[in-house]
Amino acid sequence: MRIVALAGGIGGARFLRGLQAAAPEAEITVIGNTGDDISLFGLRVCPDLDTVMYTLGGGINEEQGWGRAGETFAVKEELGAYGVGPGWFGLGDRDFATHIVRTQMLEAGYKLSAVTEALCDRWKPGVRLIPMTDDQVETHVVVDDPERGRRAIHFQEWWVRLRASVPAESIAAVGAEDAKPAPGVLAAIGDADVVLLPPSNPVVSVGTILAVPGVRDAVAAKTVVGVSPIIGGAPVRGMADACLTAIGVETSARAVAEYYGADLLDGWLVDEADAGVEVDGIEVRSRPLLMSDPDATAAIAGAALDLARELAAGAAGTAGAAGEDAR
Amino acid sequence: MRIVALAGGIGGARFLRGLQAAAPEAEITVIGNTGDDISLFGLRVCPDLDTVMYTLGGGINEEQGWGRAGETFAVKEELGAYGVGPGWFGLGDRDFATHIVRTQMLEAGYKLSAVTEALCDRWKPGVRLIPMTDDQVETHVVVDDPERGRRAIHFQEWWVRLRASVPAESIAAVGAEDAKPAPGVLAAIGDADVVLLPPSNPVVSVGTILAVPGVRDAVAAKTVVGVSPIIGGAPVRGMADACLTAIGVETSARAVAEYYGADLLDGWLVDEADAGVEVDGIEVRSRPLLMSDPDATAAIAGAALDLARELAAGAAGTAGAAGEDAR
Repeated sequence: MRIVALAGGIGGARFLRGLQAAAPEAEITVIGNTGDDISLFGLRVCPDLDTVMYTLGGGINEEQGWGRAGETFAVKEELGAYGVGPGWFGLGDRDFATHIVRTQMLEAGYKLSAVTEALCDRWKPGVRLIPMTDDQVETHVVVDDPERGRRAIHFQEWWVRLRASVPAESIAAVGAEDAKPAPGVLAAIGDADVVLLPPSNPVVSVGTILAVPGVRDAVAAKTVVGVSPIIGGAPVRGMADACLTAIGVETSARAVAEYYGADLLDGWLVDEADAGVEVDGIEVRSRPLLMSDPDATAAIAGAALDLARELAAGAAGTAGAAGEDAR
Repeated sequence: MRIVALAGGIGGARFLRGLQAAAPEAEITVIGNTGDDISLFGLRVCPDLDTVMYTLGGGINEEQGWGRAGETFAVKEELGAYGVGPGWFGLGDRDFATHIVRTQMLEAGYKLSAVTEALCDRWKPGVRLIPMTDDQVETHVVVDDPERGRRAIHFQEWWVRLRASVPAESIAAVGAEDAKPAPGVLAAIGDADVVLLPPSNPVVSVGTILAVPGVRDAVAAKTVVGVSPIIGGAPVRGMADACLTAIGVETSARAVAEYYGADLLDGWLVDEADAGVEVDGIEVRSRPLLMSDPDATAAIAGAALDLARELAAGAAGTAGAAGEDAR
């Protein structure tokens, strides 16, 4: 079974680990969001790609969900001693090495997709991890900063430094409309039996990937099942509500499904708290969605796959045998 | 009193600390060697400048004489885990931060001299530290590598990886002849009362600084006292003999003085083991030269200054009052 998942950072990575447990024989391709990539200290940092790579490769700091296990912060402390910032972005020493290798390869002319593949040679995440694009796309947020007035800031500054405490007036994936999908992205989607949308941020993670020209159409042509990142009107984790509010979408499981659209989504998993939600043109199922431990997460991923198989079989007119073939 | 010193790495830095103790009121300008600078992992590393900066700024690993005190090596270990080398150059986490700041400033268009000044804003070495040039000069060594044949390698590869175990057939400061002295270098020398040559490597440290067009002539016009890096036919530390042999100079206190030349040197301090050495046109004095502790080192620096004052006074025809004015 060939599965494509569009993933952001922490939530996406945890879901993917559950997916691997639920479908150990599947060929999984992960299209990673690069809209929150940022250049810091002259180094190119790809938080979402790294979170997926570290999580699936066994190097993640499990407790915080990002960054490396056993991390130290000597470089960051020293940069601070030189007065060189920003200090609000938590780059650890082990993590720095990843960014040094990436930056060196990018400067040597390798594309981000090739760099990511090289980094994964070490981490062996068990999935094929492809950045959504090799072109630079950076999510910027317009805020009315109480101290500095209305200005556009990098998503990371809003998200990490300001903890999204200042409302976003708008959010834009700068460069997305001119970006091309990275090599392999459209082919992987085209070859997929199922496309899954993990409970990543629907605006700045999955939404940014879908904004790369060609990706949304390719995904929409497949059987697509999403897992709601919103439970009972609040994000499962993170501050997705701040992003949804910025683009005028209600923070609810139903509204997110409508935001993705019935042209894209075939199935939508919502939490039991949202049982009864209906969305025109989308098959909605409810079940517990808290990724509280690996088993619970694997069960959620398995349920998403089951729904996808059921929908695919239904679409193919062979609904009777659905649901058990690949597990 | 205005003093200029031409310094390499460990030996030069220790001598400079002694000089500060011997002449606490003096204005000291250090012209630092950049010929052993190297780009590693996309970062510009300036070993000699950093050794001076860390030593005089209180950040040095006292035992090994280079690198940072309390250093850790997480970044290097991680780079190794990615298979990214070289592993033979010992960059620690704290040290990495220096190179990250430097590289970022260089890429922003700042010259190395301005970068060095910015780094010294933190370290406050108590001297003005200027790289010999803002242009790239790299010392290369031709070796007949048993495994890879005759080839030119970066000085650091010969010095650090091979520990100078393969004879150098030749040593060249590539780029030196087209380099310009960094801003402030010639002015500092011109304004100096005394120029000192610490017991740094006479070939790849002091020799490289003198190879920058204009520097040697400016120095030669001043009262110049050197401290022999050779005691009784062997280097005080390091492997200066391998460098001297490569350029056909005997490893002796006398031969190094002759290599510098009577046009350059006015006075030359040799160790007691070399008492009786005479060099035409150069005033040679013998005293203990082992920089075994800070007091011994300060006494050596003080003796160099005393000799310089004596020679300067003699040149001015006022030898009677020499030696005590500025201490």
